[in-house]
Amino acid sequence: MAGPEIESLIRQIARLPGVGPRSARRIALALIKRRTVLLDPLVQALTTAAASIKICGACGNYDSQDPCLICTDPRRDGTIVCVVEDVADLWAMERAAIYRGRYHVSGGVLSPLSGVGPEDLKIDRLVERVGRDGVKEVILALSATVDGQTTSHYIAERLQPTGVVVSGLAHGLPVGGELDYLDDGTISAALTARRPVGY
Amino acid sequence: MAGPEIESLIRQIARLPGVGPRSARRIALALIKRRTVLLDPLVQALTTAAASIKICGACGNYDSQDPCLICTDPRRDGTIVCVVEDVADLWAMERAAIYRGRYHVSGGVLSPLSGVGPEDLKIDRLVERVGRDGVKEVILALSATVDGQTTSHYIAERLQPTGVVVSGLAHGLPVGGELDYLDDGTISAALTARRPVGY
Repeated sequence: MAGPEIESLIRQIARLPGVGPRSARRIALALIKRRTVLLDPLVQALTTAAASIKICGACGNYDSQDPCLICTDPRRDGTIVCVVEDVADLWAMERAAIYRGRYHVSGGVLSPLSGVGPEDLKIDRLVERVGRDGVKEVILALSATVDGQTTSHYIAERLQPTGVVVSGLAHGLPVGGELDYLDDGTISAALTARRPVGY
Repeated sequence: MAGPEIESLIRQIARLPGVGPRSARRIALALIKRRTVLLDPLVQALTTAAASIKICGACGNYDSQDPCLICTDPRRDGTIVCVVEDVADLWAMERAAIYRGRYHVSGGVLSPLSGVGPEDLKIDRLVERVGRDGVKEVILALSATVDGQTTSHYIAERLQPTGVVVSGLAHGLPVGGELDYLDDGTISAALTARRPVGY
């Protein structure tokens, strides 16, 4: 069809998450066709990212500085730490723009079936950090899956000796969600955690 | 949220066709997380593509050589030329793996509303090529839209003095298509062009 350079470009693009072979071809064509507008700035951004982005030694976030912007921001409350599985979840929390504490990226959840044990997650480092930095509350924002909840319980148990307050995200109806489309588990969780309605 | 390098990377990725801000974030994270496996080979492929891919002076295809592989392939029939709007359409024809002639990329279709006139398309070059290279048939494989069909008629008119045979792709049911989901135009075209069914 096309030369090996184009084929190799399409192959690399098709390896990105959520990009199939058809979109990869479309993206490759757009990149070739609009070289100065799309391709060159993308190469620039990728090269800069590869050269400058580090993993924050304190929380596990990606940033061009270590410790990261969030860990060094004096306006953020260092006495609250939110535990998330992944940097993607940290970004999702930041988009909600409601949380003003710091983070700790666990690097995943315990999963006996996939062979992920406590030693694969950054839990030791969390316990250490809580003991050292005067943390008052740890918020566990892990997935509401069986593995996520098991991990939450495990972390809470590990944190018990430090005396820190450990909380988890509430379960319930997603905002804008319709009852009809919700699974039974969410409905029963929302019913159990029902709250008085004020006037 | 994240440093300016990550933000700029996400912005560049979100400009690719078919990639929204959410997928762009997901792709950026995957690239950062799996740098040696995803990011480095992608930069390599992009750089190589930018450095080596040219537009074929004969047909308008993208390739690392000019004239392109298709134009220089001695097994392909140089007396048949298929006119396509775009390199994407050329690739689509090649994927069908049925056509063994050469191509001519017009660069679009006539569109008075978008201000695209005959001088914006490579039609002069096609007429010249037909006169010079002993082309016997020109197959117009343009879109089955009003603009595409107008362009087909215009090209056929321009080619008339050369005496070349001009044909167009057939209209009808797509293979695997169900009547129920087809538009009226396609059904009436398929009915008009109905063929005897052999035993």
